[in-house]
This record gives sequence, C-alpha cells and structure tokens, in this order.
Amino acid sequence: MKFYDWSAANPRRVRIYLAEKGIEVPIEDAGDPDKPVLKPAFLAAHSHRRVPLLVLDDGTEIGEAMAICRYFETLHPEPPLMGTDARDRALVEMWEGIADVEGMHAVTEVFRNSTERFVDRALAGIPEPIAQIPELIERGKQRVRLFYEKIDRQLADNEFLAGPRFSVADITTLCTVDFAEFAELKIPGTCSHVARWHEIVSARPSAKLSPTG
Amino acid sequence: MKFYDWSAANPRRVRIYLAEKGIEVPIEDAGDPDKPVLKPAFLAAHSHRRVPLLVLDDGTEIGEAMAICRYFETLHPEPPLMGTDARDRALVEMWEGIADVEGMHAVTEVFRNSTERFVDRALAGIPEPIAQIPELIERGKQRVRLFYEKIDRQLADNEFLAGPRFSVADITTLCTVDFAEFAELKIPGTCSHVARWHEIVSARPSAKLSPTG
Repeated sequence: MKFYDWSAANPRRVRIYLAEKGIEVPIEDAGDPDKPVLKPAFLAAHSHRRVPLLVLDDGTEIGEAMAICRYFETLHPEPPLMGTDARDRALVEMWEGIADVEGMHAVTEVFRNSTERFVDRALAGIPEPIAQIPELIERGKQRVRLFYEKIDRQLADNEFLAGPRFSVADITTLCTVDFAEFAELKIPGTCSHVARWHEIVSARPSAKLSPTG
Repeated sequence: MKFYDWSAANPRRVRIYLAEKGIEVPIEDAGDPDKPVLKPAFLAAHSHRRVPLLVLDDGTEIGEAMAICRYFETLHPEPPLMGTDARDRALVEMWEGIADVEGMHAVTEVFRNSTERFVDRALAGIPEPIAQIPELIERGKQRVRLFYEKIDRQLADNEFLAGPRFSVADITTLCTVDFAEFAELKIPGTCSHVARWHEIVSARPSAKLSPTG
C-alpha cells in the first residue's frame, strides 16, 4: 500500500485523518520538487492523475479524500471520525460535503483563477488547458463569505460541525479555512463561532503535524 | 420523517436509491408549481434551503443526496448500494464523488449559465444573485466531454462504475448522463462503454419510476 501526497491543501485532509487515527502508511510525495505540478512519472503511472491517491497492494487506485478515509474507517472504526449511528453518519457526510463543495471548491476557485502560476490550469486534475476566468475571483469570494456565514450558524449551536464529536467534517472545514486564510480570505470578524471552533481544532496535534502548504 | 423532493435532477438520485431499496418515505414537493424556484414556505422553514432534504421526526435536517442515502444505508443495509468491504466502499465513494463533481457539477454549469430562466441564479442553493458567466458554457462542455471519456475508460473494464455491483455511483452517473442528454450534451459516439452501461441501468425499474424532469 502507498499513499501519494502533495504539499497542497487537499491531501492534508487525509494526513490529518491518518494522524487522528494513529494509522501509519508509506507516503510518497507525488509533486514535482521544482514546480507546482505533479511528477510526470506519477501522472503516467496512475489513471486517476490526482492526489490524494491510495494504491492498494493489488494495484487498486482509490482517489478522492473521503473515499480514502472511508477505506480506513471501515478497517479501523475507532475512534469514529465518520459518524456512528445513521443520523450521525448522515450529518457528518452532509457537513463534509458542504465544506468540500461550498468551501474548498470556492476557495480553490478564487486561488486558481487569480494566481499567476495557475494560468491555463484553473481546474485541478484536468489533462487539458483550462483558462482562468477573472469573474470567478469575485464570485468565489462571495461563495467563501456565504460558506463562512453558513458554518458560523451551524457552529453557534454545535461544538463541532456535525455535533458534539470531532469528525471528517471538521477536518475538511479546517483545511478549507486554513487554505482560505493562506489565500487571504480571512474568517470574517462577524463569524465569532468559526473563530472559536478554529482555535480549538487548530490546537489538535493532528493539525499541527500537517500544516497547510 | 419527510423527504422534500423537486422535479429536478439532483433529488432524483435519492428517489432512485429509495426505489432500489424498496423504502417508502412521505414525500413533499418543495418546488413552486408555477416557476422554477423552491417554495418560499420551504425556504423559510428550512435552514438548509436546498433539495433533496430529509427531515427526521426530531427535526434534524439532513441535506445532500449522499448523506440522505447514508442515513438509509445504515438502517437498511440490504441490498448494499454503498459498498460492502473497505475496498468496495471506497471505490463506490470515489466514483460517486467523481460523478457528482466532474459530471453533475459540469452539466449544471453548462445548463445554469446558458438557460434564460437561470439568469442571476447561476449557482444552486445560494441565497444571493449569482450572474451567469458565458465562458463557463464552453468550459462546462469541455468538462462534460472529459467526464464521459473518464467513465468510458472505467466502464471498459467494469460492468458498473465501482465494479461488478450496481451502486450509488451508478445512480449519480445515470442522473448525470440523463441530465446531460436533457441539456443536449449527448453521450459521444466514441464512448461505446458508456452507451452499453446506460442502456442496462436505464432498464432498471427504479430508473423508469423516476424519469428526469
């Protein structure tokens, strides 16, 4: 088994997950050491062409951060990070999905469309040139603000995103917020619940072991 | 318990899932009968503001199609539609995620940015105006083509998206392909494996019970 990582925001979700579980997996950095692209040898060898990627001993490629976590969650259920009963599992999946699509995708939209080194690579994991679209920068900022406001409402009544227990919903949200701050999309001053939560989850050893970027 | 539906592409995933499982849930249409928006009463009463939405008897709101499926999968594991062992569950989650983000999001991008009635509502579930961006139409078509090519490679070696068993990965992909065809983004003539698979899954009673639109 091998886990292909890259010092980018998205694989960090899996790194934090593994640290929370205490699971050790052989890790290889798939990124080119000289420029912000994946190594040609990695791209040639793996049809998924993206990180994070887990390759099992039988050659099975498991891509997508939550699919990799699901693999380990099934083999190592404790401590539960993807919910316990039906309601809890559903709420974790709901808030993880919101964090991914409404949060991470929106921050990525701002970052990839505004950063010089992503000219013609405005979408990740696409094997063809994708031009930047300047209108997506402002639209992405609007989406990030709405995401902050949404999770602030949720965190007003909940210690963690999906309720009283830390879960992958918090992991994805933490990676999103840290990536947003890296992209200068700070937690709004009005979102005091997000700030409180961010301080607590950032203090976990798993978060410190796996800083952004 | 109540399931809020709308005669749009995304809740269809849950309708097919429930039909495959043989689960009956009280359903209410959250859509305005006169125009393509959700009813004001639905939006006012539910903080999630989107469909599909499952509301439990204790008032818990579970949004996001796969979170709703996860709720029922935990309570009713048979027949398994979200995988069985660790590898299988991970592959289902991987291919469902690819279908959602690389497929459904891309088709939605084309549709919402090119359709007159979605002027200023180019993104779903956002409580503020979002302008259409014409460049996203061509970019979305490129993404849809790449998605078709990707699943064609996967279906060349697999009966269903995640292997030998029908799963939620097929459900999301079926809804994506049918929505794409509705939006005049037909299965490319080169993607014979997708065409073969589409014919087989479209013949399932669950697909016929829940047509697009």
